[in-house]
Amino acid sequence: MATHFADYLAAMVRAKKTALCVGLDPRWESLPAEIRGAYGCQTLEDVAAAFQDFCCEVIRLVAGIVPVVKPNSAFFEVAGPAGMEALRRVINVAKSHGLVVILDAKRGDIASTATAYAEAAFGGGTFEGRTLPVFDADALTINPYLGSDAVEPFIIQARRHGRGIFVLVRTSNPGANLFQDLECRHRMTVCEHVCDEVSQWSSSNIGTCGFGDVGAVVGATNPQEIINLRERAPDVIFLVPGYGAQGGTVADVRAALRPDGLGAVVNSSRGITFPFKPNDPDWRQQIIAAAALSARELSVP
Amino acid sequence: MATHFADYLAAMVRAKKTALCVGLDPRWESLPAEIRGAYGCQTLEDVAAAFQDFCCEVIRLVAGIVPVVKPNSAFFEVAGPAGMEALRRVINVAKSHGLVVILDAKRGDIASTATAYAEAAFGGGTFEGRTLPVFDADALTINPYLGSDAVEPFIIQARRHGRGIFVLVRTSNPGANLFQDLECRHRMTVCEHVCDEVSQWSSSNIGTCGFGDVGAVVGATNPQEIINLRERAPDVIFLVPGYGAQGGTVADVRAALRPDGLGAVVNSSRGITFPFKPNDPDWRQQIIAAAALSARELSVP
Repeated sequence: MATHFADYLAAMVRAKKTALCVGLDPRWESLPAEIRGAYGCQTLEDVAAAFQDFCCEVIRLVAGIVPVVKPNSAFFEVAGPAGMEALRRVINVAKSHGLVVILDAKRGDIASTATAYAEAAFGGGTFEGRTLPVFDADALTINPYLGSDAVEPFIIQARRHGRGIFVLVRTSNPGANLFQDLECRHRMTVCEHVCDEVSQWSSSNIGTCGFGDVGAVVGATNPQEIINLRERAPDVIFLVPGYGAQGGTVADVRAALRPDGLGAVVNSSRGITFPFKPNDPDWRQQIIAAAALSARELSVP
Repeated sequence: MATHFADYLAAMVRAKKTALCVGLDPRWESLPAEIRGAYGCQTLEDVAAAFQDFCCEVIRLVAGIVPVVKPNSAFFEVAGPAGMEALRRVINVAKSHGLVVILDAKRGDIASTATAYAEAAFGGGTFEGRTLPVFDADALTINPYLGSDAVEPFIIQARRHGRGIFVLVRTSNPGANLFQDLECRHRMTVCEHVCDEVSQWSSSNIGTCGFGDVGAVVGATNPQEIINLRERAPDVIFLVPGYGAQGGTVADVRAALRPDGLGAVVNSSRGITFPFKPNDPDWRQQIIAAAALSARELSVP
């Protein structure tokens, strides 16, 4: 039987002794000049190859330091079909380095359409009995707006393969409040309602570490909300974006962790992958230093 | 200057005299046996090629009957990078047949990440001054859960290219009520709040037809909600899924249209693209007949 996603994640966090997740968001203009020069950008295939090379190099640099990476599909989608192939390879390279891979695609659709997205993320679709995998991610981020029958196909597919789901609950952007903080019945906000549903979904499959396989995305930029949602959903793993470049501090995100250091992974993207100027020759060392510093800040027992 | 999206859509609807949109959701098991046999499914490249062939054939069959097609990205994503290439080609073939293409990807992310998705859908990203297009869609569906700063990058990018956006407001699935119908302040539901924001976004760029370039997805399966939301947002174009196979009737969806027949496109996917059994030799005729029947039901002046 496949390992429970939360137990696998917990083992990897304990092995690296940090809750840090490195976001892989390749942007052409931020890449090291040596990589841009090597590939050029005559075609989307060039761009995709440069993205793949850079992300795989980041993976090699941080694999000994962090337990989790989170590629964001948007930055690969803008490089077209070749970008999706690069994403597929980046996921495989990260897994071959023993990293947990959260595919940040924020997918959401209904019924068989949701199943198609989930099959693309985990395990693949089945065609006349033949299963053809696409992205072999350990977990996927999804958007809850469409409701229960849009979330459940993702959970079903994830559980079939021992994978996890992270549902957007309270995001880290300044405009997140527009709909997420609307106050609804029982004087609860929309994101509190979503959090309670996530807690229900999660509770139906709790691992031996005490956490379920349906997590919540809870941004670091609203510290009071982390405390509040952690109380509401004690057995839900939080994926916490917004740490570092977006302004969330260590103190803010520590509230997402259980005293034993489990229960959350904290993502930093630009702060770790792009601490350098494009022409800095020592960009690799800068990435290692940035990863080591944040890993220490987010160290767990 | 680029034509306003709503005016372009209105001209195409008037030319074909119907508000019908054909959804392109290729599923392997539903394809005609002759197409499955021709390509096989040894690899994702085979599956993608079969999807592309079928969708392009549907486009040729319905191009004289309907003004709009709506490929759903999930069904192409499950065929991997080759599937994304097939999607790109299907969009181009549809446009070469004079069809309006709504890319149904329900994307949503924040800031520069949202911009990357929007660039992939419209116009392409720019790399050292060179613009490299991916999907040349006329409009894109997006998810509003992340808030204003997650929607605005899509609007900015769409307007730069004279394209449109459809924001999920009230979806057609049975579980849509879970979050969308939560009652919030001013005794308004979440989807009414979203509808009012869409109306605001739309109103900042109204075409000569009287509709804006930011539309709303409003499912056909909740007729009272169509009437209610149409009243709230008289100048917002509705994309209405759920007609046909999902159970919405002509009477239900008529309420989305202005008396002159503009203001909504009504989608049917399976009902038009898969009315046949895989072994039916006359599958092409069945698609034409299904499209013609629905086009007539949704005829406009």
